[in-house]
Amino acid sequence: MTRAINFSAGPAALPAEVLQQAAAEMLDWQGSGQSVMEMSHRGKEFMAIAAAAEADLRELMAIPANYKVLFLQGGASLQFEMIPMNLLAGKGSADFVNTGEWAKKAIKAVKHFGKANVVASAEDSNFNYAPKQDTWKLDPNAAYVHYTANETIGGVEFHWVPETGNVPLVCDMSSNILSKPVDVSKYGLIYAGAQKNIGPAGLTIVIIRDDLIGKGNPAPSAMLDYKTHADNDSMYNTPPTYGIYIAGLVFQWLKKQGGLAAIEQKNIAKARLLYDFLDQSAFFKNPVRKEDRSRMNIPFTLANAELDDEFLKGAKARGMVQLKGHRSVGGMRASIYNAMPIEGVQALIDYMKEFETQHGK
Amino acid sequence: MTRAINFSAGPAALPAEVLQQAAAEMLDWQGSGQSVMEMSHRGKEFMAIAAAAEADLRELMAIPANYKVLFLQGGASLQFEMIPMNLLAGKGSADFVNTGEWAKKAIKAVKHFGKANVVASAEDSNFNYAPKQDTWKLDPNAAYVHYTANETIGGVEFHWVPETGNVPLVCDMSSNILSKPVDVSKYGLIYAGAQKNIGPAGLTIVIIRDDLIGKGNPAPSAMLDYKTHADNDSMYNTPPTYGIYIAGLVFQWLKKQGGLAAIEQKNIAKARLLYDFLDQSAFFKNPVRKEDRSRMNIPFTLANAELDDEFLKGAKARGMVQLKGHRSVGGMRASIYNAMPIEGVQALIDYMKEFETQHGK
Repeated sequence: MTRAINFSAGPAALPAEVLQQAAAEMLDWQGSGQSVMEMSHRGKEFMAIAAAAEADLRELMAIPANYKVLFLQGGASLQFEMIPMNLLAGKGSADFVNTGEWAKKAIKAVKHFGKANVVASAEDSNFNYAPKQDTWKLDPNAAYVHYTANETIGGVEFHWVPETGNVPLVCDMSSNILSKPVDVSKYGLIYAGAQKNIGPAGLTIVIIRDDLIGKGNPAPSAMLDYKTHADNDSMYNTPPTYGIYIAGLVFQWLKKQGGLAAIEQKNIAKARLLYDFLDQSAFFKNPVRKEDRSRMNIPFTLANAELDDEFLKGAKARGMVQLKGHRSVGGMRASIYNAMPIEGVQALIDYMKEFETQHGK
Repeated sequence: MTRAINFSAGPAALPAEVLQQAAAEMLDWQGSGQSVMEMSHRGKEFMAIAAAAEADLRELMAIPANYKVLFLQGGASLQFEMIPMNLLAGKGSADFVNTGEWAKKAIKAVKHFGKANVVASAEDSNFNYAPKQDTWKLDPNAAYVHYTANETIGGVEFHWVPETGNVPLVCDMSSNILSKPVDVSKYGLIYAGAQKNIGPAGLTIVIIRDDLIGKGNPAPSAMLDYKTHADNDSMYNTPPTYGIYIAGLVFQWLKKQGGLAAIEQKNIAKARLLYDFLDQSAFFKNPVRKEDRSRMNIPFTLANAELDDEFLKGAKARGMVQLKGHRSVGGMRASIYNAMPIEGVQALIDYMKEFETQHGK
C-alpha cells in the first residue's frame, strides 16, 4: 500500500494515524463487538464518543461555556439557509463581505429569506484579496455580519477578525477551522463543513452563542431551528455517528500535535515554503495579495496553460493527486490542510522545480 | 476480536463482509492511495463509486427510469419537513395513516406547512396493528397520502401496498427498505434513513417520481428543494461520500445474497422463528396483530418486568447487545434487519428458553 500525497480541496486528506485507528476498530470498537457505525446513537458507547468529541473540540478551540456546539448535517450549504432562517429574526437584512465563490453562495442563499447587503467586495480585482475592515460599509441595524474566513477556490484568507460591535459576527470557517487558534468569543456563530480539517463529508459543526438560539422569526420548522438541536444536544434525530467518531479521532490527533497554536506554526511553515518558491519562480504564479494569502489552499498557474495536463500527469506519476484547480478558475491548486505534512509540500516543490527547469525559458 | 450479536434498532448491524472490505480499503481504496473519505466528490474515483451505488440500488429495487434516486442528508426527520415543503404544492392538506411513533413524527412535522389529515389510526389499540385500507377515509383532493411502512418502535409492518388512485403515495421506508421486493411504480416518493438496512447514519435516500419534482409552492430554498438535488445528481453540494460508499458495498452484498426476493425469504424465516417461539411461550409476549407483525423489529415483554435488567445482563454475557426496548415502550426489542443471520436469532431464542426455564412458573 502506498499513500498518495493528496492535495484535494475537500473532502481532503486525513491523518494516516486516524485512518489506521478507524480501520483497526472497524469491526470491533474497543471490545464492544460493534463498529461505531452499528451502535445506537443513544447507547452509552456512542454517547461517550460524542461527548469526548465535543469536549476535545471545546478544549482545542477554547470555546466559552455560553456557546453551544452542534453536530449537524447538510454541509455549509444548508447553513447558508439556516443562518438567515434563524438569525434574520424579523430584521430585514444582514451584511455580507463578498470575497469569492463561497461568499457568493452564502449571499445568494440569504435572498430567499431577506436581504443580503454586500458591504465590501473584492470582485473589482477578481477576488484576489480580503477587503480591509475600514472599507466595509456596515449597517448598524443589520441582523448579523457574515464573512468567509477562507476562500477555498480563490485562496484568500482573513488573518484578522473583523470588528462588528454589537452586531453578531457570523463566519463560514469550513476550510480553515482548527488550522490556528481563534477567539471564539468574538463570534456569534461559526460554522464549518467537516470535510477539510475535521473529518468526513456529511458532518457540519455549528458553534453558536446561546443568546442567538431560538430567535427565528418566523420560527423555522423543527429540523431547521438551532433551538431543536441545541435543546437535544444534537440528538433530536440520529446524528451522523461515524462522522462524529472520525472527527473525535482527528481532535485527539490535533491534541497530540500540540493543539492549535502548534498546528498553526506548522501551517505557517508549509505555506511559506510554497509561497516563497512561487514568488521566486518565473514559471509559476499565485495571484493573491501577499497579506491575504491562504495557508490552506494555494492556487497557482503555469506560464503556459497548455502544459497543465502534462504537469498533472507528472505529479500523478510521483504520487501527487488532486492538484487540478477548481473548474471555475483553472490552473492548479494545492490544498495543504492540517493533515498535509511539510514533506508533502516539499515533494511538490521539488517536482515544480524539475518541471520549471524542463519547460521554463 | 469477537463480534457481538447486535439487535440495535438503528444505527444497526452491518454485514461483517462489508465492514471487512471497508477496513481493508480505509487507507488505500483500490490502489488510489486514498481513503474514500479523502476523495473529492467530483473526482473520477468517487463519481464511479456513487454511480455504481445508484445503479446497484436501481437494479435491486427495479426502480423505473422515470424515478430519480437522491442521496441526501438530514435523515427521515428532514424528509418529514421537505416532503410537505415540496409536495403540498399549494394544496391545503395531505392524508396520513397514524400507526405509531414514526407516523406521529411525520404528522407533527407537516403542520408547519399545511394540514395533516389523519385518515386512519391504530391509536385505539395502542398501535398494535396496521389499519386496513377499507377503513381509510381518503380525501381525493389530498396532495399526497403518507404512511410508515414499518414502525421501528411498535413492530408493526405493512405487508401490502395501499391503493391511492391518482393521489401520490408517499412512504417512510426507513426501517424495511431492501428487506423485500417492492413495486416502486406504485409510489410517488419513497424515503429512508440509511441506518437500518442501507449503511451509516447521515445518508438519506429519496426515490421520487420525476413529475413530482419542482412542484413546491411556494418554492423551497435551494437545499430543501428536490429539484436542486435532482438537477445536480445529488452533487449540488458535497454529499455524505463515505456513507454512499458503504451503502454501495451493502448493495453489492445484497446482490451476492441473491437480491431482494432471496433476502425476503431469509427475513421471513428469521421472523417466523422468533414469533413462533414467542407465541408458544407462557413467559414472553409480542402484542402485535399477527398479520401486521414486523419482520424487522420484534418487541417483546417478559411476564415480569422486574426481570428486564437480569434478562439484558444475561444476554450481554452471551454476546447479545442492544436488546432493550425503546424508552417509550419498555420491554425488549429484537431488531433483525438484513444483516442479522438466522444463527443470531436462534442464539436469542436459545437464551430466551433458558431464561424462561429459570424464571417462568
